[in-house]
Amino acid sequence: MPKKEPVAEIFESVSDGLKQLYRSKIRPIEEAYKFGEFYSPYMNDSDFDAKPMVLLLGQYSVGKTSFIKYLLGRDFPGAHIGPEPTTDRFIAVMHGQEDKTTPGNALAVSANMPFRGLEMFGNGFLSKFQGAQLDSPLLHHVTLIDTPGVLSGEKQRIGRTYSFTEVCAWFASRADVILLLFDAHKLDISDEFKEAIEALKGHDDKIRVVLNKADAVDSQKLLRIYGALMWSLGKVIKTPECMRVYIGSFWDQPLRGSEWSRQLFEMEMRDLLTDLKNVPKNAAVRKVNELVKRVRLAKAHAYIVGHLKKEMPSYFGAQKAQAKLLANIEEHFLKVHRAHSLPVGDFPDVAKFRAVMEGHDLTKFPKLDTKAIAAMEHVLAHEIPKLMAQFPQEGTVSHSNSAV
Amino acid sequence: MPKKEPVAEIFESVSDGLKQLYRSKIRPIEEAYKFGEFYSPYMNDSDFDAKPMVLLLGQYSVGKTSFIKYLLGRDFPGAHIGPEPTTDRFIAVMHGQEDKTTPGNALAVSANMPFRGLEMFGNGFLSKFQGAQLDSPLLHHVTLIDTPGVLSGEKQRIGRTYSFTEVCAWFASRADVILLLFDAHKLDISDEFKEAIEALKGHDDKIRVVLNKADAVDSQKLLRIYGALMWSLGKVIKTPECMRVYIGSFWDQPLRGSEWSRQLFEMEMRDLLTDLKNVPKNAAVRKVNELVKRVRLAKAHAYIVGHLKKEMPSYFGAQKAQAKLLANIEEHFLKVHRAHSLPVGDFPDVAKFRAVMEGHDLTKFPKLDTKAIAAMEHVLAHEIPKLMAQFPQEGTVSHSNSAV
Ligand SMILES: Nc1ncnc2c1ncn2[C@@H]1O[C@H](COP(=O)(O)OP(=O)(O)OP(=O)(O)O)[C@@H](O)[C@H]1O
Ligand SMILES: Nc1ncnc2c1ncn2[C@@H]1O[C@H](COP(=O)(O)OP(=O)(O)OP(=O)(O)O)[C@@H](O)[C@H]1O
Ligand SMILES: [Mg+2]
Ligand SMILES: [Mg+2]
Repeated sequence: MPKKEPVAEIFESVSDGLKQLYRSKIRPIEEAYKFGEFYSPYMNDSDFDAKPMVLLLGQYSVGKTSFIKYLLGRDFPGAHIGPEPTTDRFIAVMHGQEDKTTPGNALAVSANMPFRGLEMFGNGFLSKFQGAQLDSPLLHHVTLIDTPGVLSGEKQRIGRTYSFTEVCAWFASRADVILLLFDAHKLDISDEFKEAIEALKGHDDKIRVVLNKADAVDSQKLLRIYGALMWSLGKVIKTPECMRVYIGSFWDQPLRGSEWSRQLFEMEMRDLLTDLKNVPKNAAVRKVNELVKRVRLAKAHAYIVGHLKKEMPSYFGAQKAQAKLLANIEEHFLKVHRAHSLPVGDFPDVAKFRAVMEGHDLTKFPKLDTKAIAAMEHVLAHEIPKLMAQFPQEGTVSHSNSAV
Repeated sequence: MPKKEPVAEIFESVSDGLKQLYRSKIRPIEEAYKFGEFYSPYMNDSDFDAKPMVLLLGQYSVGKTSFIKYLLGRDFPGAHIGPEPTTDRFIAVMHGQEDKTTPGNALAVSANMPFRGLEMFGNGFLSKFQGAQLDSPLLHHVTLIDTPGVLSGEKQRIGRTYSFTEVCAWFASRADVILLLFDAHKLDISDEFKEAIEALKGHDDKIRVVLNKADAVDSQKLLRIYGALMWSLGKVIKTPECMRVYIGSFWDQPLRGSEWSRQLFEMEMRDLLTDLKNVPKNAAVRKVNELVKRVRLAKAHAYIVGHLKKEMPSYFGAQKAQAKLLANIEEHFLKVHRAHSLPVGDFPDVAKFRAVMEGHDLTKFPKLDTKAIAAMEHVLAHEIPKLMAQFPQEGTVSHSNSAV
């Protein structure tokens, strides 16, 4: 993969822009109305700075670590390649001036790393998590996550000191692309791997499939294997559109096979590299979408709290009044919805909202701050579109992975 | 496809053997104990004589009629080929000395044809059913069923004067192979076609898939299409093993495309022809299995009726006694099961047996005929194995359609 791409710069400047907007205009309002307690935690700079992430998953020995080596064009610290299950930990392969490894415990407490959430998996996991830093152009714009191969049966369930599928789900929700690797030479999809794939539910649009070591079998056999793979994946992944599959052999050895099949593999491999190059652009689009969604929720939240606050008595009986308001909360949502023509989709879950608000004193919340609302609307209507103008024209449409 | 194959002769001689055995040794016993009323109708010679059947299904214009022409190496009477929906009826393409067509009504009443069951679909269907006879070596050992293309939406549902899926299910249960054709150039699987495929449930082992017109797209695109096809089929067909797919272009024009892909298509097409050549052998195996199953059921049935008959009083109160026997029929099944160590699987459905027997007078049935039972056992233990000895060694194992 060549050096720093213009798309990587777009990603960085968009991220920086979003970070500024959030920090200066959104977070103060979120804090005033305690948005973080009703929805997801307040965001920090590191949430914006985190590079797009590519997660690699597959059964053992399918060539995950070799694949990363192939992308980087070199070895990375802590990489082990071999025919037996070799990689025994999750490795975040990141950019750094010098080669070094960092233990998982240290990564999970670094404020400037996107791995703090991993603490919840405890030491059983953190001792099997590690950072690998090195200087490689690709890592300027993505972070790669190597993972231990999925084992079968007992070994997977008992041999591991953490829940493999839960950890995968955590990375999947933060990743921009999930590469599922399969070995054409030895295709079998174990129940354990199916479980891991099922844990990716809701992130189907991020999944790309790699049928690796494709040059190790003859073409007719390859067709059969590819067909069997699609047949099985179609059953496990519920979306009607099929995943994009890249057929090739991703390691540092020359391609084998007939000239024709080599040509095909080369096209496929080129397509995959192009797809990965677009990751930062798509990640930027996704970040924008996510922030827009968050700001809309925060706006609706401010309206709701402002409305409830207005309904409270000024002097006595606040507690009783609050209980009554919360008992009829749906009615009040409806009023807010009508008064400000807010989309229903921007309203919170009734039960959750009520539960959180019961732990608070409504009188302590600020009144509806119309200036703050106007500021949010300005962000949505002007400042974010200004950031988006940086995308090249087709870049505003997120990459589709449908095949036909 | 070349001339009459030795496998075709095996099929005929096995069928003839089964026919003799059934007519002389099994059917008389079945009739004595009214087996036909409790299970499926008595079998006629034509049930044994019927050639193995290959059913072709697919959306319109995928090339079903051209495919048949390709197999025959010539046109058949009543064949219409064209880009618009052309075939408007089911056509049974059969062997005959001279070219001729026969209307569906006539076919459905012919005692020596396997189509009598089709009368139940009435004239709405029979006017859209037709026989085509011609002299072609392939037709010595198989009958091909051309079908109208599956249309989409209204046209399929309203435009047809019979239930397309029910008719398909009828043919599917009698067919030995079901070929599902798809057009690589225009792959879309309509809801109507999915319905038709779902109607094939229970016959999954007969299904083979043909990805036709494969030389009309470039290889990378073909891969995508093939993958998408497997993805979708895996969702519609519930078996974990994937269907065998034959990729090629089955018509009378030379193959297009690169040399490499032409080679691949040729291999695939050859494989399909080999598979079809084995149809008679597999059909013979299936006929044997079906008859063995039927004889076992008939044997258990004779034991059951004989036992019940023995429990009946000789002079008075027959009606009451019969009612009591039928009320406790499970207990009696158990007794018969224990006394003759018959497998539980050979016993009839309790409710069905009771319902049919209620319409009969048990005293009218013959006693347990131990000689007849011995004759049946002789058929199972000696005469059928003797027929089977004709199969070449691998022929006794039915053809597997798993892909990898
Ligand atoms: N494209 C390829 N073609 C053929 N062999 C390959 C290819 N890529 C990797 N291999 C070989 O497969 C074996 C496993 O490779 P690797 O260690 O990279 O797999 P892995 O998926 O990381 O395994 P683990 O899950 O155990 O970490 C090694 O012997 C490697 O040399
Ligand atoms: N292998 C092939 N490659 C390219 N074109 C083909 C091929 N086979 C058939 N065709 C063309 O496709 C069109 C439809 O063919 P045909 O009538 O055989 O399809 P069909 O499935 O029988 O259609 P229908 O359901 O309407 O009866 C015709 O124009 C035919 O010439
Ligand atoms: Mg590894
Ligand atoms: Mg036709």
